[in-house]
Amino acid sequence: MNKTINISNPKLKFSSGKSISPLEIAYETYGVLNKEKTNAILVCHALTGDQYVCGKNPITKKPGWWDILVGKNKPIDTNKYFIICSNVLGGCMGTTGPKSIDNSTKSTYGLHFPVITISDMVKVQMLLLDQLGIEKVLSVIGGSMGGMQVLSWMSEFPQRIKSAIPIASAAYHTSQNIAFHEVGRQAIMADPNWHEGKYFEHNIVPEKGLSVARMTAHITYLSEVALQNKFGRNLQDRSKKTFSFDADFQVESYLRYQGVNFVKRFDANSYLFLTRAMDYFDLISENDGMLANAFNNLHASICVISFTGDWLFPSSESKKIVHALNANGVDVSFIDIESNKGHDAFLMDEPQMFETIRGFLEAQYNK
Amino acid sequence: MNKTINISNPKLKFSSGKSISPLEIAYETYGVLNKEKTNAILVCHALTGDQYVCGKNPITKKPGWWDILVGKNKPIDTNKYFIICSNVLGGCMGTTGPKSIDNSTKSTYGLHFPVITISDMVKVQMLLLDQLGIEKVLSVIGGSMGGMQVLSWMSEFPQRIKSAIPIASAAYHTSQNIAFHEVGRQAIMADPNWHEGKYFEHNIVPEKGLSVARMTAHITYLSEVALQNKFGRNLQDRSKKTFSFDADFQVESYLRYQGVNFVKRFDANSYLFLTRAMDYFDLISENDGMLANAFNNLHASICVISFTGDWLFPSSESKKIVHALNANGVDVSFIDIESNKGHDAFLMDEPQMFETIRGFLEAQYNK
Repeated sequence: MNKTINISNPKLKFSSGKSISPLEIAYETYGVLNKEKTNAILVCHALTGDQYVCGKNPITKKPGWWDILVGKNKPIDTNKYFIICSNVLGGCMGTTGPKSIDNSTKSTYGLHFPVITISDMVKVQMLLLDQLGIEKVLSVIGGSMGGMQVLSWMSEFPQRIKSAIPIASAAYHTSQNIAFHEVGRQAIMADPNWHEGKYFEHNIVPEKGLSVARMTAHITYLSEVALQNKFGRNLQDRSKKTFSFDADFQVESYLRYQGVNFVKRFDANSYLFLTRAMDYFDLISENDGMLANAFNNLHASICVISFTGDWLFPSSESKKIVHALNANGVDVSFIDIESNKGHDAFLMDEPQMFETIRGFLEAQYNK
Repeated sequence: MNKTINISNPKLKFSSGKSISPLEIAYETYGVLNKEKTNAILVCHALTGDQYVCGKNPITKKPGWWDILVGKNKPIDTNKYFIICSNVLGGCMGTTGPKSIDNSTKSTYGLHFPVITISDMVKVQMLLLDQLGIEKVLSVIGGSMGGMQVLSWMSEFPQRIKSAIPIASAAYHTSQNIAFHEVGRQAIMADPNWHEGKYFEHNIVPEKGLSVARMTAHITYLSEVALQNKFGRNLQDRSKKTFSFDADFQVESYLRYQGVNFVKRFDANSYLFLTRAMDYFDLISENDGMLANAFNNLHASICVISFTGDWLFPSSESKKIVHALNANGVDVSFIDIESNKGHDAFLMDEPQMFETIRGFLEAQYNK
């Protein structure tokens, strides 16, 4: 547990033209790498995820974020596969990010951290694979921002992957999604405790702003139906409205809880940088306006998964990816899973997703 | 212009059991009341609207919020009808609200203002009709929170209306809508300049918090398609991404503009109280779980209008209202207008809405 590599002078220029040194990559592995190094699966985490995919998360003491999917005899079976997951570049769980110390100033990067892209995250993951001596992964898999990383692998480093599974994702961030992210960033920046990103120097964190950002985002992770089914207009531990601004409704109480808990484990500046990276993601504009061009050199097998109840990364966006893959004659399967759980379905008990992933990986492994 | 009535001892107990005195009602009228007093139309404004329906708004110097619909020879024709619109109870444009002076303390009400309901707003409007000597309005019309007031009129005071037009509305606020409102309220309350609602005493206003609240809400007023059509991923006055947290994207710039402008004209505490009133609105639970019971005594003619692209108050909610009216044999027509403008369609150039309203009102007038 708690593995890290430290690269003192990475030959890596970011999309912005900037670079950083040293670069630390915090990662976890599960299972055993076989002698031929052909059973590695790279898991890419989402915006607020981390490297603790399964087992017990040492920070939160709760099960890893994909413990339901990854482990012994689970769909991503650690008896068979070697799972790698690293905290993304710009994150706050050990990999270099805005809360890391900038050697040139001896204080935290804060806003001096370079604005990064999904492509930059993937390039850092490639450095890790290089260190582990893995030339080609059996598969790369991830949902949401993790799915964006998967798409970036498919586009930029197709020779390093045998297969890929982008889940609940899109080839670009929509106007509405940028809008929701911008609200979150403005909420953080509006908090006077943010101090233009230098809050650690003030021994404080912008808890309230980050909490509001999380609350906004959390609504977009669920569906209207999911909220209605889960909470409806039920009151929280009371039989009558209080005619006050207390959390009368369960949904209010739930959101406040989500906000308060999030700030305990996440860094506000990381939230700024990672949401920005998602907003900047656009495989269409980066490929002369043709998404198909993004996959010209791809020969891997692809399994695209979406959920009907996901309004943040709707099925229609996954279909665009499938069409672009079809245009290149790529071996692609696509499943649009009937679900009313919203975007977060990819983190939940979705038997169809589990069986699809299990079967797809087995086929790749035996190929 | 700028009409007000002041009621020194209103016989009015709010839903919370509280009351206030004196009560001031700021309102505007357009057109001329006929001798029989049968041509009055009560317009109910939405959350951030005001009494300045048409002509030039004296505060913003822009056209009134429904100038496109109301005026000489327009669908709600001021040559023919006498239009009344009052600022809602709890508002910030002249009617008593949290920024009014509480006579018992000689300072602003702030959070000591009673938590009000849609029903309370309507009861205050009735006081105004009483003062104007209008026994029965030809019609009551409004969209969004205005539509909630219309529904409340239909349910509570059916004998005072000859007809009603609830637009882009719902008989209760959904879990998701409560959630978005709660985020807005938390953003305001997170602003240290809010001072537990006593910001006027500190000669400051919680601009940043209110701005974030407005930005969040504004996304919900548009549709994903509307945002994509209007802004897409277009950059704002620049040819390349800046790799910074500037408003690179047009949609970011637009939202920031919306936020900044809103705080110039709206009171943060009013925002808290009015959103709370909307959250509390629930004609189902108030009628023993049966929406149909809300309209048992209704004999007016009703025209329900919704928009297909509205995800905040979706057409399905308007259909529930229509079913409940049908169950009572009420004379109801329903039009679900094909539109991709989102919830705000009711404020925009929607020819089908205009013609429907024009025709419906003429029929009522000639009846």
